[in-house]
Amino acid sequence: LGGAADTLREGLLAGNRRALARAVTLAESTHPEDRAEARDLLGALPEPEGTLRIGLTGAPGVGKSTFIEAFGLYLARLGQRLAVLAVDPSSSLSGGSILGDKTRMDKLARHPSAFIRPSPSGGATGGVARRTREVIRLAEAAGHGTVLVETVGVGQSETLVAELTDIFVLLIGPGAGDELQGVKRGIMELADLVLVTKADGTLAQAAELTRAEYQGALRLMRPRPGDPDGFPRVMAVSALQDSGIPEVWLAIDALAAHRRATGALRARRGAQAVAAFRREAGHLLLEQFRADPASAARWQAAEADVQAGRLSPEDAAGRLMDRHD
Amino acid sequence: LGGAADTLREGLLAGNRRALARAVTLAESTHPEDRAEARDLLGALPEPEGTLRIGLTGAPGVGKSTFIEAFGLYLARLGQRLAVLAVDPSSSLSGGSILGDKTRMDKLARHPSAFIRPSPSGGATGGVARRTREVIRLAEAAGHGTVLVETVGVGQSETLVAELTDIFVLLIGPGAGDELQGVKRGIMELADLVLVTKADGTLAQAAELTRAEYQGALRLMRPRPGDPDGFPRVMAVSALQDSGIPEVWLAIDALAAHRRATGALRARRGAQAVAAFRREAGHLLLEQFRADPASAARWQAAEADVQAGRLSPEDAAGRLMDRHD
Repeated sequence: LGGAADTLREGLLAGNRRALARAVTLAESTHPEDRAEARDLLGALPEPEGTLRIGLTGAPGVGKSTFIEAFGLYLARLGQRLAVLAVDPSSSLSGGSILGDKTRMDKLARHPSAFIRPSPSGGATGGVARRTREVIRLAEAAGHGTVLVETVGVGQSETLVAELTDIFVLLIGPGAGDELQGVKRGIMELADLVLVTKADGTLAQAAELTRAEYQGALRLMRPRPGDPDGFPRVMAVSALQDSGIPEVWLAIDALAAHRRATGALRARRGAQAVAAFRREAGHLLLEQFRADPASAARWQAAEADVQAGRLSPEDAAGRLMDRHD
Repeated sequence: LGGAADTLREGLLAGNRRALARAVTLAESTHPEDRAEARDLLGALPEPEGTLRIGLTGAPGVGKSTFIEAFGLYLARLGQRLAVLAVDPSSSLSGGSILGDKTRMDKLARHPSAFIRPSPSGGATGGVARRTREVIRLAEAAGHGTVLVETVGVGQSETLVAELTDIFVLLIGPGAGDELQGVKRGIMELADLVLVTKADGTLAQAAELTRAEYQGALRLMRPRPGDPDGFPRVMAVSALQDSGIPEVWLAIDALAAHRRATGALRARRGAQAVAAFRREAGHLLLEQFRADPASAARWQAAEADVQAGRLSPEDAAGRLMDRHD
């Protein structure tokens, strides 16, 4: 590393907040020099040891920010240093970004142990995954050993967050049996923990009913091999009354400890990395192939033929690649 | 097409059973000449019009064959010509194949309107998808307008079957709330219809309870945009008492008619074909890249580095492809 990069790396490893912010800015930049510097920096970081990556998703209005703030403050009181990152692949379209308004997590944002980073706007899903993966690594290197990755669930973002984290948490509101605020297909399948929010006051009973209903639904699915009994688990929480928060941490900690002890956590991270490598390598190969305008035009024509049923997928792919040889 | 190929095509379009069997054998062959002949034949077939592809899955012992036989005989009595295909990507390992024992569907196998084909053994998942896609087209060309594609659900085979069909049906036994015969994660998400089998005799009550339980669980998930009310639907059936079978067909027919009218069925087939094309093209590109022994060795080394955390996925992919340029 060069002199400036070395200074940045040392600041990062010392837990310096400004160094972390600067490194994250480099990782999120689209300038080739910044990207190269970020890549060099990431390559010079030690392996993260004992960190925990928790993904969280939930529909708007479910009380996600309120929960994350209460949960984060609880972890900070336990002496943990944490990072809260947001993933929103749609932010290039909406112009806004979740977590953009830091006042949503006012107390947590001012806490010295917490590093909060809104979702960067712009870029395709692949870019979001790459950047988020890098920011996780940077935050961990700066000593933020517990990383919360939040998404509102636009497009494929929950799947993306699940593929970047060790444990995945779904938040739902009380009375979520109501189809209008139902859960997107496929997401319940990813959840290790389902949290029913707002379990207080007049909603306490509805929250308990919802909890039982979801626990029943999850029981109908085959448990994940290797996970301890009782997971996936459904719990009711109230950020307002600060109730259920320690229990959520105990559950997450127990599941993480189990997955660490069995090697499942390390295996999951390894598999996530290999899958990302394959996607990236395949993506780069396609990019190289389609960088040639004639190849790109033939690709488009082949897709149109396949879409309309004029050519079988296998036939079209074979013809496209044979001519490329 | 040459003389023999022309004869085969004419026999196929005339609905000749031996021509269909011969064409399927060609499609399932791994000999390059056979494959080329199959590809030419498939390329010379008209677009399938008004056909319906139904995927079915269920754990062993759930009564899948019994249901398919009763359902198939009912469709045959309605004047439909059908094909029953099986997908079992594991058959290369097990040596056996589902539907291998035709006596499992004795009456249906002897029915002149039904064409039953066991799962061919051997080959990777990609090959199974390709072959099955081709056999579906051949059966349709021979006038078997309703195609049932069955899988026992090994590995990713349900997803594969769902991606080859218009409507996807999950069969479960009564009392499936029992975790031991629970449903693999992700599969319930694919189902348009969940059928609770053996709804007769002493199991009738358990089947109804299971039906209500699953209907409740499915209500908790967001409905698919564009589908009519009441789907995904859970129904109880008894192949023994031949009860529920007409209702299942009515539900499938209504859903298919709706998807046809809205264009969703055509769009789904187009999207399935484009996705298959992209997979196949990406696969061929990777194959060409890794056909070079030096590239293949570097790929393996990169994966090992990524798995062990020595290189980030993006970094490893970038290095691998940069050097390839």
